[in-house]
Amino acid sequence: MPHAFSIYFNSITRSDLNKITVKSPGTVANLVCGFDILGMALNEPYDIMHLKLLNEPIVVIINKDDFNLPTEPEKNVAGVVLLSIIERMNHKTGFEVVIEKHIKPGSGIGSSAASAAGAAVAANHLLGGIFSRDEVVQFAMNGEKLASGVKHADNIAPCILGGVSLIRSIHPLDIVAIPSPDLFVTVVHPQIEVRTSDARQILKKQVLLKDAIRQWGNIAGLVTGFLKNDYELIGRSLEDVIIEPVRSILIPGFDEIKRKCKDAGALGGGISGSGPSVFMLSVSETIAKATETVMKEVYDRLGIENNTYVTTINKKGVEII
Amino acid sequence: MPHAFSIYFNSITRSDLNKITVKSPGTVANLVCGFDILGMALNEPYDIMHLKLLNEPIVVIINKDDFNLPTEPEKNVAGVVLLSIIERMNHKTGFEVVIEKHIKPGSGIGSSAASAAGAAVAANHLLGGIFSRDEVVQFAMNGEKLASGVKHADNIAPCILGGVSLIRSIHPLDIVAIPSPDLFVTVVHPQIEVRTSDARQILKKQVLLKDAIRQWGNIAGLVTGFLKNDYELIGRSLEDVIIEPVRSILIPGFDEIKRKCKDAGALGGGISGSGPSVFMLSVSETIAKATETVMKEVYDRLGIENNTYVTTINKKGVEII
Repeated sequence: MPHAFSIYFNSITRSDLNKITVKSPGTVANLVCGFDILGMALNEPYDIMHLKLLNEPIVVIINKDDFNLPTEPEKNVAGVVLLSIIERMNHKTGFEVVIEKHIKPGSGIGSSAASAAGAAVAANHLLGGIFSRDEVVQFAMNGEKLASGVKHADNIAPCILGGVSLIRSIHPLDIVAIPSPDLFVTVVHPQIEVRTSDARQILKKQVLLKDAIRQWGNIAGLVTGFLKNDYELIGRSLEDVIIEPVRSILIPGFDEIKRKCKDAGALGGGISGSGPSVFMLSVSETIAKATETVMKEVYDRLGIENNTYVTTINKKGVEII
Repeated sequence: MPHAFSIYFNSITRSDLNKITVKSPGTVANLVCGFDILGMALNEPYDIMHLKLLNEPIVVIINKDDFNLPTEPEKNVAGVVLLSIIERMNHKTGFEVVIEKHIKPGSGIGSSAASAAGAAVAANHLLGGIFSRDEVVQFAMNGEKLASGVKHADNIAPCILGGVSLIRSIHPLDIVAIPSPDLFVTVVHPQIEVRTSDARQILKKQVLLKDAIRQWGNIAGLVTGFLKNDYELIGRSLEDVIIEPVRSILIPGFDEIKRKCKDAGALGGGISGSGPSVFMLSVSETIAKATETVMKEVYDRLGIENNTYVTTINKKGVEII
């Protein structure tokens, strides 16, 4: 009897320790004037990922969605993250991951980051939390490298930490959590394709010093606004004189949406990540919904299929459920 | 008897209302990564200014120091500020100003801003405080225009407000007070001449986008550090990859001083304004004094006469005494 109980108990325990389910949120990177350094997590949309420890050093990927993402670990964002963790563990473990993706790939709201960050956080948890926050971020950045060719953390960091993250530096990694105010976020995803690599390529390698100065005034203003809960300052600082004027030409209707959303009361906003999604911040749900109506009207009139989200800033990051 | 008392009382009152003495602090502009947007007020050195209302629309300037600054109002920093106020008042008043300057002109610690801001604040007070904060800043900026050819506010704003000021934008004027931590400041003024116009001219009109991104990461970090009292973050963020590499060649010993001050425990620092003064921030007076010793040693060895100050961040700005 004690023996039987022990077996039963071990099997329960092992099953609990070997499996985990996480919720991994969408994120807005390149927060207007904060190109490459500021990102923010969203409460909607999010992916669900189920991870299981395996005894063999392999990665098994099961996609439970209609996006036809690759299941070969080397070609899958979550896959490369888990492979890098297996390597660090000297090939003593492996992972099975079941992905229910709800964040559309290519939407510009951190779909690849959600897979990468979710996999890294979940794997670390299954391994007993042996890796530091920054190590988890580093593992997850391998997924971004696969997705966009560049190891960047402005989706990864807020996805893992929640709230608004400042990536002060990548080499060495220096991530700073910025307390974020209780703002509403409206996102529209027009169903057009903007390749991250194209969006990066059209940027000029040089910028005018006077524009750079204006930009860093806005960044300082935005961060101060977040820290002081000063909504008007946030609104005034949501201005990008360097990236947006170039990239917005890839997004039909951008100027009209931005103008009309601000007329509807939104504080301001811009391109989410490298697009095509556009986001706006608002102080109330009423304004956030009015903003959604404006976005829908413009894209419906332009005949561009679109998804919208009215949500809030996610303050938890990847969450074990 | 009541009549006599009334005359006496009026004369006392008029005399009180017609005269004022202010203390106007030195300031550090271009706070490392915050070129053109961040400035900070110092408790030492400071100027003393005595202002008196006149019935005629004239400006009388009396210098009580050895700097031989011009006394023609049109050529004097305080003079042009007062002339612009007289113009706004429809030539219904005038001012006499006695200046005891202690902040050496050309030192890079806001000598002209102290004259301009002190004159503007004192005049506004004598006029019953009829002008708003931003109007006072605008009047004072006329002095900076005379001194350097450019209407800038990164000395004026902290001189008037105290603490650390963010000048998010000049057109339109958008000044944000940043709560500043209790840090010590060490300043060295090597007695060499760096013309603001030269310091401005050697800057490149264009900068690399990747450098601009690094700079705005540092600015966001510095502002966050000030707001969160995070000294380590302040230290890491006190890095300027754009202006300092160019301007520091005008300041002998700069690299050595910076390296040795940090070795002595200073958080970091850089060129004050457009130089030649160099400043360092420290968490304790002991470190601030060790920093002073380093500065003195380097300039004494180089045979360059120098003044030093060990002080703290001034949180009051121009003060009526």
